[in-house]
Amino acid sequence: MKQSQLFLNTLREVPADADVVSHQLMLRAGLIRQHAAGVYSFLPLGMRVLHKIETIVREEMDAAGAQEVMLPALQLEELWRQSGRSEDYGPLMFRVTDRHGRAMVLGPTHEEVITELVRHEVRSYRQLPFTLYQIQTKFRDEARPRAGLLRLREFRMKDAYSFDIDEEGLDRSYRAMFDAYCRIFDRIGIAYRAVDADPGAIGGEGGTHEFMVLSEAGEDTVVGCEACNYSANIEKASGQALPAAGSSGVPAKARVATPGVRTIDDLVQTLGVAKAQVLKVVVYLADGQPVAACVRGDHEVNEVKLKNTLRARHLELASPEAVEALTGYPVGFVPPTISIPVVFDRDVASVADGVAAAGAGYHEVHVVPGRDVVLTRVADIRNVTEGDLCPHCGGRLRFFRGIEVGHVFKLGTKYSRAFGATYLDEKGQERTILMGCYGLGTSRIIPAIIEQCHDEDGIIWPLAVAPFHVHIVPVNVRDEQQVKAATMLYQRLAAAGVEVLLDDRDERPGVKFKDADLIGLPLRVTVGNRVAEGKVEVKVRKTGEVQVLSLEEAFQTILHTVK
Amino acid sequence: MKQSQLFLNTLREVPADADVVSHQLMLRAGLIRQHAAGVYSFLPLGMRVLHKIETIVREEMDAAGAQEVMLPALQLEELWRQSGRSEDYGPLMFRVTDRHGRAMVLGPTHEEVITELVRHEVRSYRQLPFTLYQIQTKFRDEARPRAGLLRLREFRMKDAYSFDIDEEGLDRSYRAMFDAYCRIFDRIGIAYRAVDADPGAIGGEGGTHEFMVLSEAGEDTVVGCEACNYSANIEKASGQALPAAGSSGVPAKARVATPGVRTIDDLVQTLGVAKAQVLKVVVYLADGQPVAACVRGDHEVNEVKLKNTLRARHLELASPEAVEALTGYPVGFVPPTISIPVVFDRDVASVADGVAAAGAGYHEVHVVPGRDVVLTRVADIRNVTEGDLCPHCGGRLRFFRGIEVGHVFKLGTKYSRAFGATYLDEKGQERTILMGCYGLGTSRIIPAIIEQCHDEDGIIWPLAVAPFHVHIVPVNVRDEQQVKAATMLYQRLAAAGVEVLLDDRDERPGVKFKDADLIGLPLRVTVGNRVAEGKVEVKVRKTGEVQVLSLEEAFQTILHTVK
Repeated sequence: MKQSQLFLNTLREVPADADVVSHQLMLRAGLIRQHAAGVYSFLPLGMRVLHKIETIVREEMDAAGAQEVMLPALQLEELWRQSGRSEDYGPLMFRVTDRHGRAMVLGPTHEEVITELVRHEVRSYRQLPFTLYQIQTKFRDEARPRAGLLRLREFRMKDAYSFDIDEEGLDRSYRAMFDAYCRIFDRIGIAYRAVDADPGAIGGEGGTHEFMVLSEAGEDTVVGCEACNYSANIEKASGQALPAAGSSGVPAKARVATPGVRTIDDLVQTLGVAKAQVLKVVVYLADGQPVAACVRGDHEVNEVKLKNTLRARHLELASPEAVEALTGYPVGFVPPTISIPVVFDRDVASVADGVAAAGAGYHEVHVVPGRDVVLTRVADIRNVTEGDLCPHCGGRLRFFRGIEVGHVFKLGTKYSRAFGATYLDEKGQERTILMGCYGLGTSRIIPAIIEQCHDEDGIIWPLAVAPFHVHIVPVNVRDEQQVKAATMLYQRLAAAGVEVLLDDRDERPGVKFKDADLIGLPLRVTVGNRVAEGKVEVKVRKTGEVQVLSLEEAFQTILHTVK
Repeated sequence: MKQSQLFLNTLREVPADADVVSHQLMLRAGLIRQHAAGVYSFLPLGMRVLHKIETIVREEMDAAGAQEVMLPALQLEELWRQSGRSEDYGPLMFRVTDRHGRAMVLGPTHEEVITELVRHEVRSYRQLPFTLYQIQTKFRDEARPRAGLLRLREFRMKDAYSFDIDEEGLDRSYRAMFDAYCRIFDRIGIAYRAVDADPGAIGGEGGTHEFMVLSEAGEDTVVGCEACNYSANIEKASGQALPAAGSSGVPAKARVATPGVRTIDDLVQTLGVAKAQVLKVVVYLADGQPVAACVRGDHEVNEVKLKNTLRARHLELASPEAVEALTGYPVGFVPPTISIPVVFDRDVASVADGVAAAGAGYHEVHVVPGRDVVLTRVADIRNVTEGDLCPHCGGRLRFFRGIEVGHVFKLGTKYSRAFGATYLDEKGQERTILMGCYGLGTSRIIPAIIEQCHDEDGIIWPLAVAPFHVHIVPVNVRDEQQVKAATMLYQRLAAAGVEVLLDDRDERPGVKFKDADLIGLPLRVTVGNRVAEGKVEVKVRKTGEVQVLSLEEAFQTILHTVK
């Protein structure tokens, strides 16, 4: 395409309201424009990228045996009441009343609609399994839309739903989607981690993985092993248990007055001990019943793990008043030996010579877990910390920031039970269908790519999703020889199926090169003065590597790179 | 694809609530399912058809030089107030208030959004012309959704918008879209007419054509010439003027009493004259001013033509009270010689020996227009009738029913003026951009195709949009030889890029053949007993033609047909 005909306005200035690099670059390179908060238009360059991403997604979904459908954006609100999620979503759903007064919502996701649909179509085990997917615009009325395409109120998403007769089938369907996701991100050419996540947080019954693109702009913390590909989110990640300490050489415990101590930092200063020596006690209400969690002072309670350990449906921190009423101690002075049930983190056992609260204004020192405190119930209930050891290979765990771009999830029977989606098995018995759901944010992948692939001059598109493969820049369009050579190369490449952008604008070379770097096509051909010798420059955007080649060599090199 | 894995439920019964053939067949062949009134899910077979149609549309838009974008479905309502269309649309737009109380609408179309966008991007004539398009889900809260996908509340549409510096540019952009539409419908393989329409009805300034698929299920009347391709809608169509009658041999006019006559039919009966002899007078208010229209008694006033003739902004029929107040005559007795302005249809001159009202209870007979009535202002202000002569070739005009599937429209400066979308010309002068808009209902094309392409057994897909090209039906899947031959042919064809559906279900042959006819793939291969001799049957769905071929011949024939 000729650039003079492309609907494209690049911006020199960094837009004032864009604080994230990908957002700045998407605006500057003319990929998108904002219409309203969290609502954007995709302009031709941005649309080409989105279309390529969605084509890769479609191809891999098809290859994995999933079948494409299109479900409505306008959904009956009554289905959301049936599943119980209308309240859960609350103001996050756009709500519409139609001219006949019927309550509808704009679909943020499609579990309800598809389960209701499948319920009417499936009778027999012989119709199962299958996986349906769609690529579609979705709507969420986010309170604080953020950072360009990272958190939108109107966004593009691929969502898939699998339907199986049993757990093994669900495992296979889940694995097929998991593998397809890996192929999609590999093809796009982006570094990602498939992060083990906790299903409890979303209310499913089986496993779940989040696909995270690693980036400082990400909102999520990803725990990853430096040595192997173990990854989990902070709620789910688990390191190896720390070595237990013995009690040998530890004096008998002693009570000391600690007036004025309010926090663990106070305690550490006052007594001159390490944080890791402190036995921290936190009081919760689990389904309304009091329970205490005890972790090392330098560790944090992981509430998801605690909730799972307790098999509780609801878990909340007890208020200071509740703590005092339930334990008789003020917050910060609850001893690990109180009478309400206590869950001890397994790494409490690593404390050799501990310090524990002993009621208002007092602590005990030389406390040895196991010796002085009976570890009634032990479980992994803490967040991992950087430096913990990988449960798979013993390597060191590190924290990364990540942008969640995909999510695969075993739903089990959550929705099929709510909507009565059943099948008759071989014996004619009615059984509930097992479901999985698989989301992938196609519009969010764009900023995720840019966060990983840019430099100070602009975007560096991976070949597979670049809006064009090659940028041909004649330095001076008033020079006939340059124009002729550039046009010939343009036509030859285009005829060979290469996507070429020809900068035929009568602009200063500096403007053209700045735009080329900003737009960030993988290869740039500069047609300048050396065209008199039949030579052009081919530059790789990613490495900056420049080759001076004849027109024929340039053609062959580009063809070889692109095809 | 193997049919046992396809998410497909065919229905034997005609669904009770579907009265239009395409709706019945889309439900029965498992292409769609209803979610709510006017809101449907596309199932895999329907989605494949939609995807093929949209791919053809995208290819032809790209080939015509249009650039793809994606504009938001959630639109700021204030833009619709700025254009004055928020009120025009009224309850036809879904309206949403976001969590911050901001008024938004679900886009039924995108003139406002794109003009506002382009206004910010375009400064100079050098950035023009360009045409942008999108393929997208749109929303209209229709009072009476109808006939499956023919009138939806959530539907798919391609819309394009052109931006030009002058009329010649707009003509070129319009022509490029017009031609692209012709190629799209030709490629789909559907009979259509590009119907000349009146722009006034929609408020544009230039030309407009509606693309109509001819079908009895259509809601619109299309006027078409039997001999040439002249087509226009009823508002716009114009036949050749009828031959004028002379006054020779007509006696002098005479006044007769016509007590009890209320209607033209009464008059015809009472006086024994033909309807075509009557001079019918209808009184209107044009921008508040009284005006009468006079047409032949067997003709109807075309209010769009009358409005255009008068260059009026508003035209309404005068109430009986207003008629009497303005003319002094009761309705039905207003003579063509009154003092308020009268526009005479040009075919009033074809009346030789006329009858005209002459005040309450009286008529005049032997009235000769021109002799007895001065034809002060003559214009074509009537609807054509079947049998009128084509203005291009003199052939006979006929009425067809049509389904509107596309619309191209010269908007002129309607929106660019409202939003201040201007450019600086070569002399640095600010000028208003000229726009065109081009809609095409991609989801509506599906029922339009089916209305044209079906028989009593089911759908007959044109090859270009068929969900699969070939249906291979082994008659008995317990017969190893049949299964082996069918599978081999399936694999060979699939490897050659042919889209094949293999009916591997263990069903009775009758069920399989009925399903095959219903789904309507262009070619069917029946693998039955004659496979023992190496023979299969290849049947063309459209013609019913059957060939008995060897497997190799079948392969070659199919490849030849499909590629």
